[in-house]
Amino acid sequence: MAEAARDLVAVGARMDRLGWVPGSSGNLSARLGDTAIAITRSGVHKGRLTEADIIEVGLDGVALRAGDKPSAETKLHCQLYARFPETGAVLHGHSVAATVLSMAVPGDALVLEGYEILKAFRGIVTHDTRVALPVFDNDQDMARLADVIAPALDAEPIGYILRGHGVYAWGPDVERCFWRLEALEFLLRCELERRRIR
Amino acid sequence: MAEAARDLVAVGARMDRLGWVPGSSGNLSARLGDTAIAITRSGVHKGRLTEADIIEVGLDGVALRAGDKPSAETKLHCQLYARFPETGAVLHGHSVAATVLSMAVPGDALVLEGYEILKAFRGIVTHDTRVALPVFDNDQDMARLADVIAPALDAEPIGYILRGHGVYAWGPDVERCFWRLEALEFLLRCELERRRIR
Amino acid sequence: MAEAARDLVAVGARMDRLGWVPGSSGNLSARLGDTAIAITRSGVHKGRLTEADIIEVGLDGVALRAGDKPSAETKLHCQLYARFPETGAVLHGHSVAATVLSMAVPGDALVLEGYEILKAFRGIVTHDTRVALPVFDNDQDMARLADVIAPALDAEPIGYILRGHGVYAWGPDVERCFWRLEALEFLLRCELERRRIR
Amino acid sequence: MAEAARDLVAVGARMDRLGWVPGSSGNLSARLGDTAIAITRSGVHKGRLTEADIIEVGLDGVALRAGDKPSAETKLHCQLYARFPETGAVLHGHSVAATVLSMAVPGDALVLEGYEILKAFRGIVTHDTRVALPVFDNDQDMARLADVIAPALDAEPIGYILRGHGVYAWGPDVERCFWRLEALEFLLRCELERRRIR
Repeated sequence: MAEAARDLVAVGARMDRLGWVPGSSGNLSARLGDTAIAITRSGVHKGRLTEADIIEVGLDGVALRAGDKPSAETKLHCQLYARFPETGAVLHGHSVAATVLSMAVPGDALVLEGYEILKAFRGIVTHDTRVALPVFDNDQDMARLADVIAPALDAEPIGYILRGHGVYAWGPDVERCFWRLEALEFLLRCELERRRIR
Repeated sequence: MAEAARDLVAVGARMDRLGWVPGSSGNLSARLGDTAIAITRSGVHKGRLTEADIIEVGLDGVALRAGDKPSAETKLHCQLYARFPETGAVLHGHSVAATVLSMAVPGDALVLEGYEILKAFRGIVTHDTRVALPVFDNDQDMARLADVIAPALDAEPIGYILRGHGVYAWGPDVERCFWRLEALEFLLRCELERRRIR
Repeated sequence: MAEAARDLVAVGARMDRLGWVPGSSGNLSARLGDTAIAITRSGVHKGRLTEADIIEVGLDGVALRAGDKPSAETKLHCQLYARFPETGAVLHGHSVAATVLSMAVPGDALVLEGYEILKAFRGIVTHDTRVALPVFDNDQDMARLADVIAPALDAEPIGYILRGHGVYAWGPDVERCFWRLEALEFLLRCELERRRIR
Repeated sequence: MAEAARDLVAVGARMDRLGWVPGSSGNLSARLGDTAIAITRSGVHKGRLTEADIIEVGLDGVALRAGDKPSAETKLHCQLYARFPETGAVLHGHSVAATVLSMAVPGDALVLEGYEILKAFRGIVTHDTRVALPVFDNDQDMARLADVIAPALDAEPIGYILRGHGVYAWGPDVERCFWRLEALEFLLRCELERRRIR
């Protein structure tokens, strides 16, 4: 737990420097063995976490210690850990690019094509490929939202966006999960720029 | 006073790193008990404050110590403390997004709709809502400006913008006031981006 | 000299963090009494200066110590110190906003109007004003360029831009000169944004 | 080797702060005498390098120590060291500007004209010049890509771009190579901005 907490505190500060966790937004988590998850508590700034802000929840998202309050979105983290056993960390942030782009694209996916940085994702070995990044309508009912997300996970997407809300990224550990998040945010900024220029 | 001064010095540095207090712009304050307010003195850079740059004024905005010069805009801080007793801090910055957007929107409000980050504000529990952020024409006469602002405060807005000037945010303490400012600035950047893309 | 050197080293680091001195671009100077100027030597990165990179030149721009090589643009600094006796520091940087905007505006001035931040400049007490920021065509012949600039200085402008090149700001000391530069760059970013949005 | 490793670790952190090495992207190298090159190993984040992440390869790009895995793009570094004997360092990053601009321009070069910052490059003494920055289609076959690049190097370009991928810059040492990269990225951001404004 101590190591996971340190990693999450540090990655929160990195996400904050990049402007991805305004206010108390975002949720950061790491798997703890086979039965628990370390996750940021509700209502704290992710750029100024202390280890006391990282709490333990079971695989069902329920806090292991009475009084600890996980975020409602903990359920979306749990869904990813359950669906992808090799996942060791999940990072969710709110960037301007993800927010604006997901409100601008009408459909249920953003198509990414021709970028070298796509090779940051597992199984992609060339820029000469088309990748669909799922975009889901935002919902305050987490159980219903998880049901909408579930079928799209079968395709093992590179991450997903909640419309007007933010990005979810996952990876084998906190560090490599951050790399995937960074690559996703890079792609979103590129797509946003491409919609601006002549 | 010492704690309020430390908090204001620190939050000024955060605002500076985000580019919201160019030159000597901006004003930062915190409530001190029932009778006084700690506020930045006039004509200092808010990113390089020392505790000596934080002065005490009464609830009427008059400096408690002879020789201390509060900013003219202190009156707008006092208005917020008087109108909302639970307010413990007020932050005012000048961002590019607030400046440009307020000069581009013609009316007296900017409508924000569909953003998850709106939940950063008290009483908002879903993204599926419409929020009007008041925009007031700038005025160098603070008493007159306060009179224009007063009726709009009845709706308990999430903050307000002075056109071509900047944002005012308030909250229960300096930290949570910063979160609200950060959420407001995030929303303004999103709105600016949405006016740029195809 | 030691204090001026320390101030210039520190302000170079601030300009670098803001992206205004790419490569070895930019020149920073401070007046030393009545007869000399401290200025950055040619061909060093302004974000990683040491005090050894600050050299002394006379009011004519000639190095006081054999072997020291000031930048060619030292002459433009000297012009400002000679023309405005109260000037204690001159900062010149290369920002994207100044470069792009000056290449986009056709005439010899950029008109700035309605911005609260204009009050950062001496003698301006309201946003409700129009200010002309001179824009000069770039020239590698510094004597000729200084001759073109000279008449425009009679109006005591808030600074000036060299087209496709960068901004010159001056002020009573290094700190307040930086505030003016920061205000100028803020205005240029606002103007650039306003030319982008619908 | 120790000095080269220290320089590359430090320059990676600078590139990271500027957002040019998302995920594990980018490659950084420095020449070691006449027979070897120090280069970042494959699959590490360039903003958090340790000296252990810098490995030695021969001029042919083959690791000198068994088990060390250089990036596939090491061959492009070797090509530059072989072609330009005075080159002491090569930096390759992935910026949003380079990615987006290279995907937007149709031809095999981006023309840069009228910028003062062009003087950052050897042999350029005035802004009043036209410079062609080569843009090559991206390719996962490094030998084939090197063959496409080779003829364009005869013109001693100021750097080059791989489309949808990133920039290559080279210089006499790590510090001055970074200056050239910084100047290139500045130019690319300017060009991107100019395609956005009215």
